[in-house]
Amino acid sequence: QNDLLSATGTTIFTVMSALAVQHGAINLGQGFPDYDGPEDVIEAAAAALKDGRNQYPPLTGVPELREAVAAHNRRFYGIEVDPNAEVVVTSGATEAITACLMAVLNPGDECVLIEPLYDTYLPVVRMLGAIPRMVRLSPPKWELPRAELAAAFGPKTKAILFNTPMNPTGKVFTSAELAFIADLIQRHDCYAICDEVYEHLTFDGWKHIPLMTLPGMRERCMRIGSAGKTFSLTGWKVGYITCDRTLAPNVAKAHQNLTFTTPPNLQRGVAVGLMKDDAYFAGLSASLEARRDRLAKGLAELGFGVLPTQGSYFITTDFRPLGFNGDDVAFCRLLTEEAKVTAIPVTAFYASPDAPSHYARFAFCKGEAVIDAALERMRAWL
Amino acid sequence: QNDLLSATGTTIFTVMSALAVQHGAINLGQGFPDYDGPEDVIEAAAAALKDGRNQYPPLTGVPELREAVAAHNRRFYGIEVDPNAEVVVTSGATEAITACLMAVLNPGDECVLIEPLYDTYLPVVRMLGAIPRMVRLSPPKWELPRAELAAAFGPKTKAILFNTPMNPTGKVFTSAELAFIADLIQRHDCYAICDEVYEHLTFDGWKHIPLMTLPGMRERCMRIGSAGKTFSLTGWKVGYITCDRTLAPNVAKAHQNLTFTTPPNLQRGVAVGLMKDDAYFAGLSASLEARRDRLAKGLAELGFGVLPTQGSYFITTDFRPLGFNGDDVAFCRLLTEEAKVTAIPVTAFYASPDAPSHYARFAFCKGEAVIDAALERMRAWL
Ligand SMILES: CSCCC(=O)C(=O)O
Ligand SMILES: CSCCC(=O)C(=O)O
Repeated sequence: QNDLLSATGTTIFTVMSALAVQHGAINLGQGFPDYDGPEDVIEAAAAALKDGRNQYPPLTGVPELREAVAAHNRRFYGIEVDPNAEVVVTSGATEAITACLMAVLNPGDECVLIEPLYDTYLPVVRMLGAIPRMVRLSPPKWELPRAELAAAFGPKTKAILFNTPMNPTGKVFTSAELAFIADLIQRHDCYAICDEVYEHLTFDGWKHIPLMTLPGMRERCMRIGSAGKTFSLTGWKVGYITCDRTLAPNVAKAHQNLTFTTPPNLQRGVAVGLMKDDAYFAGLSASLEARRDRLAKGLAELGFGVLPTQGSYFITTDFRPLGFNGDDVAFCRLLTEEAKVTAIPVTAFYASPDAPSHYARFAFCKGEAVIDAALERMRAWL
Repeated sequence: QNDLLSATGTTIFTVMSALAVQHGAINLGQGFPDYDGPEDVIEAAAAALKDGRNQYPPLTGVPELREAVAAHNRRFYGIEVDPNAEVVVTSGATEAITACLMAVLNPGDECVLIEPLYDTYLPVVRMLGAIPRMVRLSPPKWELPRAELAAAFGPKTKAILFNTPMNPTGKVFTSAELAFIADLIQRHDCYAICDEVYEHLTFDGWKHIPLMTLPGMRERCMRIGSAGKTFSLTGWKVGYITCDRTLAPNVAKAHQNLTFTTPPNLQRGVAVGLMKDDAYFAGLSASLEARRDRLAKGLAELGFGVLPTQGSYFITTDFRPLGFNGDDVAFCRLLTEEAKVTAIPVTAFYASPDAPSHYARFAFCKGEAVIDAALERMRAWL
């Protein structure tokens, strides 16, 4: 069997969700809302099912969704793309990430990755025979170490893959940071795979900036969005890639070998979603900001060190102030088994064992009563 | 960009479907029904959408679908599998094939493939750094060349991947052929990836036999089924892999890196489908057999050499008796542009240019009026 897969475990999200079920714990681990997405989006998908939209759609997505993705890029970021040649719809952002990596990497190429990182990045880079070059952000401020980043780029660099707003740190990359990255990309004549699934989940006036909007980046970026996150429908598995017409053919051919197409009825629903008015998107971030505040305040009151969250579904906490040692896996296990609340150990987002090990990640994309109940359980336990 | 992808074209199915649209041709190319799947299956999926089944399901699939897959294996083939440890649901059979290849192949391993072959097999084997070993069936009877097949296996063989009932040939592998393959697999201690998406589409008393049911094969086979084909819902992109508990973890980890999960509402619909009574499955093959007969008879009357079809959606025809030379790509183009009927050139299912080039593939999974209209257009043209 394949050695790389045999050597890795099942994803931490599945492991912790299973443990949560086993112990009857409130699951603040895996990042999915416990509330449903917009009714009109769901209705549109259900109507399309009954309306005979059940056979293979076009390889790159149904025209109305490709047009909606293009309109969404224009409305929020002023990015102009051709819906017929510069948009590829995928079966979720996970597939989108894999397809973009496949589109550009050859065996032996180097790919720059920023730690902490999402758990499919590294195994996919390795599966493709490419060489990961890791750069680590330093907590608690998760600053970009510019000299190290510059040193990670070299003559073999083919791409950088990173995530903003960032899971698990909640960091939103600044325009200065993005300009620094853009400069490296240009100087090393390479590509960027921009995992921007939390683009609409930013708080406190932080605004998501796509790397693609920076000078020189239009032709070099593959920008990934996610209906799951933008419409609170994580099970739908509809993602979309915006990229230049010179990149889209290889991205589409990768998609062809991975899933070929994505269910047309769900694509129809997402098209309706992307055309929603600005109030929807503002309401989404406001609602999540309130949930973040509720959980952050509660965790701080319990004594956790609460790191700031500028975007995403997640709060990172330092649990040492509670009197626990720095073993995040043991802490998250204990929290699940005894307090009956599940969080994710942040070492799961690092490739090597020398990672900071005193952080636990809590998801706040949950109902207020659930957040309150989780806080109450932890209070009783502590 | 990636050299392998850059060097290959967009799939023939997309190319010919686009050409069909451009010329207003009746599309008997890409294999998808122009009728809808069972109403109760569609209703179940629509109800699940409105019932809040919209967040991440478990990695390997929703429990009711895994149980339905296990029950389906037992009912039709007497295969006993543990729904909790030996079934992995994927976003279509294309993802299933890629996940199974990823699960077992290491770079440098050899993988035996049987030509003509489906168009994702070869690029995925190559992407994984594995070495394809091709064996070719000989038309018009598509017999398995046993000595050549035996010679293709060797000390580096890790797997064989093949398709029965077979696209594009309509061949159903016999128990003697399967026994020969099983013996090679055992002697070379390797795995089989069994693309059995057309398992319920067999005709004239031909029965599909899963390789997995042969002695010694239970632990070595990854058996792939497809809701798209079994329920005439090709756009749903729900596939399922049945394999031993020793293989399932790597298959699930590959799935994790490819799409992570598959929409739970569609999974719910497919679970309802797999529990349908025997009359449904018998009716499906009877209905397709009648469509095959209608198209085969009409093509023969027009003068095509019609090869027998024992299963699948497809008829292979020899167009030389009509007076055309052996250039199938030119013939299919002409047929689309002039006769306004689209077929697929069979050379698209071969890796090298020395393929037989006098065959065109027609799909018969279409309404009777559509089949008749296509025949009438070709009659008028000829
Ligand atoms: C795809 S499962 C994990 C969901 C998620 O993005 C997270 O919890 O980090
Ligand atoms: C996945 S598109 C092709 C559909 C099909 O199986 C075929 O036409 O051969």
